[in-house]
Amino acid sequence: MRIQPDIIRQFNEQAHEEHHRKLNALQHMRNNANELEHVIQKLMAMQIAIPSWALGTGGTRFGRFAGGGEPRSLEEKLEDIGLLHALNGNSGAVSLHIPWDIPENYEAIRSLAAELNIKFDAVNSNTFQDQVGQPHSYKFGSLADYSKEVRAQAVAHNIEVIRHGEALGSKSITVWLADGSSFPGQQSFRRSFEYTLDSLQQIYAHLPDDWRMFVEYKPYEPNFYSTVIQDWGSSFLLASKLGKKAYSLVDLGHHLPNTNIEQIVSGLMMEGKLGGFHFNDSKYGDDDLTVGSIKPYQLYLIFLELVEGMESEDFAWMIDASHNIKDPLEDLLQSVEAILIAYAQALLIDKEALKKAQEEKDVSLCQEILQDAFRTDVRPLLAEARLRKQAALYPLKLYRKLQVREQLIESRGSEVAATGL
Amino acid sequence: MRIQPDIIRQFNEQAHEEHHRKLNALQHMRNNANELEHVIQKLMAMQIAIPSWALGTGGTRFGRFAGGGEPRSLEEKLEDIGLLHALNGNSGAVSLHIPWDIPENYEAIRSLAAELNIKFDAVNSNTFQDQVGQPHSYKFGSLADYSKEVRAQAVAHNIEVIRHGEALGSKSITVWLADGSSFPGQQSFRRSFEYTLDSLQQIYAHLPDDWRMFVEYKPYEPNFYSTVIQDWGSSFLLASKLGKKAYSLVDLGHHLPNTNIEQIVSGLMMEGKLGGFHFNDSKYGDDDLTVGSIKPYQLYLIFLELVEGMESEDFAWMIDASHNIKDPLEDLLQSVEAILIAYAQALLIDKEALKKAQEEKDVSLCQEILQDAFRTDVRPLLAEARLRKQAALYPLKLYRKLQVREQLIESRGSEVAATGL
Amino acid sequence: MRIQPDIIRQFNEQAHEEHHRKLNALQHMRNNANELEHVIQKLMAMQIAIPSWALGTGGTRFGRFAGGGEPRSLEEKLEDIGLLHALNGNSGAVSLHIPWDIPENYEAIRSLAAELNIKFDAVNSNTFQDQVGQPHSYKFGSLADYSKEVRAQAVAHNIEVIRHGEALGSKSITVWLADGSSFPGQQSFRRSFEYTLDSLQQIYAHLPDDWRMFVEYKPYEPNFYSTVIQDWGSSFLLASKLGKKAYSLVDLGHHLPNTNIEQIVSGLMMEGKLGGFHFNDSKYGDDDLTVGSIKPYQLYLIFLELVEGMESEDFAWMIDASHNIKDPLEDLLQSVEAILIAYAQALLIDKEALKKAQEEKDVSLCQEILQDAFRTDVRPLLAEARLRKQAALYPLKLYRKLQVREQLIESRGSEVAATGL
Amino acid sequence: MRIQPDIIRQFNEQAHEEHHRKLNALQHMRNNANELEHVIQKLMAMQIAIPSWALGTGGTRFGRFAGGGEPRSLEEKLEDIGLLHALNGNSGAVSLHIPWDIPENYEAIRSLAAELNIKFDAVNSNTFQDQVGQPHSYKFGSLADYSKEVRAQAVAHNIEVIRHGEALGSKSITVWLADGSSFPGQQSFRRSFEYTLDSLQQIYAHLPDDWRMFVEYKPYEPNFYSTVIQDWGSSFLLASKLGKKAYSLVDLGHHLPNTNIEQIVSGLMMEGKLGGFHFNDSKYGDDDLTVGSIKPYQLYLIFLELVEGMESEDFAWMIDASHNIKDPLEDLLQSVEAILIAYAQALLIDKEALKKAQEEKDVSLCQEILQDAFRTDVRPLLAEARLRKQAALYPLKLYRKLQVREQLIESRGSEVAATGL
Repeated sequence: MRIQPDIIRQFNEQAHEEHHRKLNALQHMRNNANELEHVIQKLMAMQIAIPSWALGTGGTRFGRFAGGGEPRSLEEKLEDIGLLHALNGNSGAVSLHIPWDIPENYEAIRSLAAELNIKFDAVNSNTFQDQVGQPHSYKFGSLADYSKEVRAQAVAHNIEVIRHGEALGSKSITVWLADGSSFPGQQSFRRSFEYTLDSLQQIYAHLPDDWRMFVEYKPYEPNFYSTVIQDWGSSFLLASKLGKKAYSLVDLGHHLPNTNIEQIVSGLMMEGKLGGFHFNDSKYGDDDLTVGSIKPYQLYLIFLELVEGMESEDFAWMIDASHNIKDPLEDLLQSVEAILIAYAQALLIDKEALKKAQEEKDVSLCQEILQDAFRTDVRPLLAEARLRKQAALYPLKLYRKLQVREQLIESRGSEVAATGL
Repeated sequence: MRIQPDIIRQFNEQAHEEHHRKLNALQHMRNNANELEHVIQKLMAMQIAIPSWALGTGGTRFGRFAGGGEPRSLEEKLEDIGLLHALNGNSGAVSLHIPWDIPENYEAIRSLAAELNIKFDAVNSNTFQDQVGQPHSYKFGSLADYSKEVRAQAVAHNIEVIRHGEALGSKSITVWLADGSSFPGQQSFRRSFEYTLDSLQQIYAHLPDDWRMFVEYKPYEPNFYSTVIQDWGSSFLLASKLGKKAYSLVDLGHHLPNTNIEQIVSGLMMEGKLGGFHFNDSKYGDDDLTVGSIKPYQLYLIFLELVEGMESEDFAWMIDASHNIKDPLEDLLQSVEAILIAYAQALLIDKEALKKAQEEKDVSLCQEILQDAFRTDVRPLLAEARLRKQAALYPLKLYRKLQVREQLIESRGSEVAATGL
Repeated sequence: MRIQPDIIRQFNEQAHEEHHRKLNALQHMRNNANELEHVIQKLMAMQIAIPSWALGTGGTRFGRFAGGGEPRSLEEKLEDIGLLHALNGNSGAVSLHIPWDIPENYEAIRSLAAELNIKFDAVNSNTFQDQVGQPHSYKFGSLADYSKEVRAQAVAHNIEVIRHGEALGSKSITVWLADGSSFPGQQSFRRSFEYTLDSLQQIYAHLPDDWRMFVEYKPYEPNFYSTVIQDWGSSFLLASKLGKKAYSLVDLGHHLPNTNIEQIVSGLMMEGKLGGFHFNDSKYGDDDLTVGSIKPYQLYLIFLELVEGMESEDFAWMIDASHNIKDPLEDLLQSVEAILIAYAQALLIDKEALKKAQEEKDVSLCQEILQDAFRTDVRPLLAEARLRKQAALYPLKLYRKLQVREQLIESRGSEVAATGL
Repeated sequence: MRIQPDIIRQFNEQAHEEHHRKLNALQHMRNNANELEHVIQKLMAMQIAIPSWALGTGGTRFGRFAGGGEPRSLEEKLEDIGLLHALNGNSGAVSLHIPWDIPENYEAIRSLAAELNIKFDAVNSNTFQDQVGQPHSYKFGSLADYSKEVRAQAVAHNIEVIRHGEALGSKSITVWLADGSSFPGQQSFRRSFEYTLDSLQQIYAHLPDDWRMFVEYKPYEPNFYSTVIQDWGSSFLLASKLGKKAYSLVDLGHHLPNTNIEQIVSGLMMEGKLGGFHFNDSKYGDDDLTVGSIKPYQLYLIFLELVEGMESEDFAWMIDASHNIKDPLEDLLQSVEAILIAYAQALLIDKEALKKAQEEKDVSLCQEILQDAFRTDVRPLLAEARLRKQAALYPLKLYRKLQVREQLIESRGSEVAATGL
């Protein structure tokens, strides 16, 4: 299913009065046209990759309640992202997961993506599950396993993932490692780390010159005592030892309770080692909820850091959520919206005024400056950015008006489960 | 120091154009005049008590960095609250702490308060510190202590606090108990709880008929292994056993990491046992930061619960923060502002639409409804409510323009420390 | 597969010298024969139920790495528990899970259990997953669902579970409710609670007179914003409203970070509402690791509370762990061992001395008393208790010597997955 | 007050039979004389520094309940440590805190320390409090402050601390920095980090060649939004940039909930950057409780890592606790005991067997090996090590028998407060 430009244009025309009224109101509220125009330009340029596995219904260890109309193939996954991108103009990239998304025909997939205006972002390897027919099991580890054979298999898989990525035009690989232990004494922390470094070095040796490698960290789950790459410090250490093309990747849900994530983001940027970002939200652990649904202020504080780095560097943005009870496409629309709101608010900050207040140790004023931007209703700017890109003023409304899900169920069936998680 | 109505009127006149522009913009944004008028009315009626100890600079166990111009007496504390109330019109109540705030002349204090339009909210007892000349120490406990003499002394103190409150026109007492243990085995949980119940019953017996008793809970600090009243369950149990006039009091900072506080608020209201509320914010523990400075969305979610209960019940609202590095008066102005913003946003919710979405299990729509209100910039409504009450359109701006702190330092000195913490 | 008494006797004879040496050493260490004999008697009497689902390999949302020789039927599950019970003499009860364990022939199952000396402990209902052909989905809730039909179906299921339990001789039902929400606003806390109470009352009405109902609580997972029965307070409230036969059930893994679980245990016992206990261990969330593998001191502190209650009341003890990377039977042997060690240590406490030290506020001495017992190596007492019951002195050693797992794999195959999770 | 060797000898003679019985029992329990002798030798060599501020009663932000007989001068602090060292033979070092412990006469202090057999461990600077007459305040920061003057003052103080340490024979300085922010936006993370690095480099330039600098980290408190050196990653980064003589220092209480501290210890050792260790225990935050009183198994797991590093490297061990309700000297005796127990248990591990089990992925066996050592009652080994060093078999017993505290109160008074916190 595709949404034709005409449909969107028509919808926007009907919604134009409302939009105009709101944008106008915001202009009166802020009273600074240049500032708002600057934000609109930035919003138009922002692209957030959609992971191929986020298009189906996710689950927990207690089960999974399937939704309907899920994509049954890589082609249908791209089609779904095409729908998102048509609606909001900010979802023009896909992050593939190997082996779930191995193309049968590279050329056809590239053409389809080009047609939908979708780029290939980071490719992801999978050594946290066993695939049918796989000689060695990852039950006790992969890149960090004590068995040479297991490590070799995991290294080879990652190299293969790079090959798939190259064939599609991707320029980076994300390595998320589930390796770790569930019980004290099960493994030597040191030995596991050294194996991991060695394995990553082998993969790194096969990394094309214009590629980047993202090393993800996570404190726990699926292992419940230790993870080999447990925090930004370990990820940074590995990325430093690997070389210039290696970076850390921050996933919002991969932190212990109360972690100051924005400080980590700042630190990694300072050292030139922030590479990618996985957006989601959570209250307890790696809950993988819709971005901005639980802690929107934290998201905004993170963007306050990011906007500085974004001026000089190029980060890989990706949503990494699990849609257990919502329609995945609706959830993704809400997530992109929340990211853009935080981004827009962060752009509104008067940096010079903030810097001055900081230097004068005027803590109350620093807070006023931060909260003024956060309390501003920037949604009309998002709508305006979409309007200018021929995307929908109100993506979720149009999605529902067009009954996209109903149509997908009709064409794909209600009992399918997307490949992957 | 007092701020004359003329000064405020003059300030408001100068700021009127800006305010009018913004209020107008909000009206265009929301397009529903009745809704906004309703919120303004509610905001005008809201009063939040200021604790007498919050007017001085707080500290940590590592030290305290005094500010200047702190109030040196109960009279000066009331004067400070008078300043706040003149500025924002929402701070017309004080919560006293005995023995720090024992009046020398009740009549004079009552007159002063009446003059400043300040009411006496809940009085607070203190059995977590020893006072000079006190026969028995609270080092190991007070209402829950193993020694009969200590408990009797603590009970008598609370009864005395009620007497002070009666003389001033207060109608409730808040009992916050530091009692607990720092090491496993130090106390029997059961025995401590039974002593506490017994002591509270003795105090309750002296509670005037039109008074309420608020039982506060807290998981840890100053004891580091257990607190006798550690959570809402224990507080509720005690309040239930005590009787109709006993209620639980929720302090936002008194919860374990990741606690869903809004659910606790809902539960206590359902059982008719929510009595009071201490506002502050925190990232790690009982950090006592400015309200809304860390988790504004959580504050909003809590108000979503509260607005329902507020229709039929009367709660005791109080700020309970510690101002370690900000000017306490500025901090309190920011806190009240944050509370009112959350309240206003919660009032914007279309309850019927939300109920319908919940019944239809339309999770995405539920989120849209919640976030639509939260993302709305309601600040012009707060300003309008203040304008109508002859308070300042922008309290913090006027506070700074009038150089209130500088004047207080001049009159009170820069080396004073407020009585209390 | 069964282990014949002769095999055990033979093993014990070979190990007797070692055991005798160690028991003797412990007697010299403690120098108090009566005390040790008392502990041995208590240990002999202790029985811990094994949940039927714990006999297979568990998994996480990222996948499951099957082990071999898992039980393929209820009969084989009982057979596995029979093995455990033969080895340690403390695993003489099973907790069934409906619908995973519905017997085809009640009489045959009862006979088999009697033959293996296994009793039927609490039965468990399941409304957190959909079963094939089920008319209504539990995707958004069960006993607390907004749809009358869903609630009715869930109530009927629980009543049916009671019927199965009656037929087997069980005397209690455990209700663990996954109901809750993953997003703010998705449900009304109050309405969900009221539905839950109403549903539980309907089930309670069908509870036989000599049965008990255990209401479990959990802060999060599988829902990630709120759980209807989120903590002991809510569980206690429901149990109180339901009536005398309703109790709270504590699962060690169902608490927020840093919770003082032993205090909760004490509080529930004080109110006569502690009914059951699920043992496991965890570092981060509901990790369901081997009992005692992460926080053995906490387990001991919990038993310090329990030993008091055990004198007058009868609790339902059960292990509730997930064996993702260990042989489930080995894991269960280790768990039972850890429980008995904590129990034995708690029994060693000189209660009168502790009470006196508490009254004298001698905090250092309180700690000495607690740690003296914890630091004592009580393992010879466990061995002696087993020896007297014709179980194996060293269960895990014998399990490995007999190559039980290898035999199970041979007879059941290496590719099976136990029914259930 | 000093305890004469004769007094100890006499006490040991009376306790000898009990000790002999227990040591003998342990030998029968373990059945491996070489192993035990090896542990005894290691225990005899272990020395743990006592911080000078730990000899008085600590407090919280809510107050402080003084004990009696606290040391009133540096001399009396050394005297107290002399008492500890005489009793347990493992407390032969002191860690001074400047400016609280500036000696009036270096030579006299050195003589006194030599007489008491006490060495001077790391010296500690203090830029988290303002001292009377100090030109610039540390209210908003010290080494990371935005004002050049404040930073210069803090740098100069640290250099002065090194000078004091040199005069006494210390060989290291510990820098614990309270610097950070309590509100989002108050400071730029990056700028604060860069100032910190610059300041530390200036101090480092004054570090004698045979000295080490320990950079401590802490996630929060006294600042409640961010700390400049918030975790091991930041500490490691600074230590790496500073040079060979700079190391990280781990304080057990300075971690977010659920942190795997032993993994951090392993990682820092692997990189050759673990320098020092502050022992204490906690349940919630930086509770500074007696070592081993809350999580003894975690302490043991940490020692499992440390014993490897201790073979080749030299770490600075120190207790850093706050004794709010116990007699500080009793508390310190309990802390040293807990440390030695964990150390002894860690030494009992059969490393080769563990390595083999890890390689064979025999997770259950790994756990058995770890828990076997932890469950062993090693206390007779500690007593034996003390006996051989002419210290007391049972230090706390002798301390109480000699009524040390009563004597200290008599000579020093009951109303004194130790200098410092």
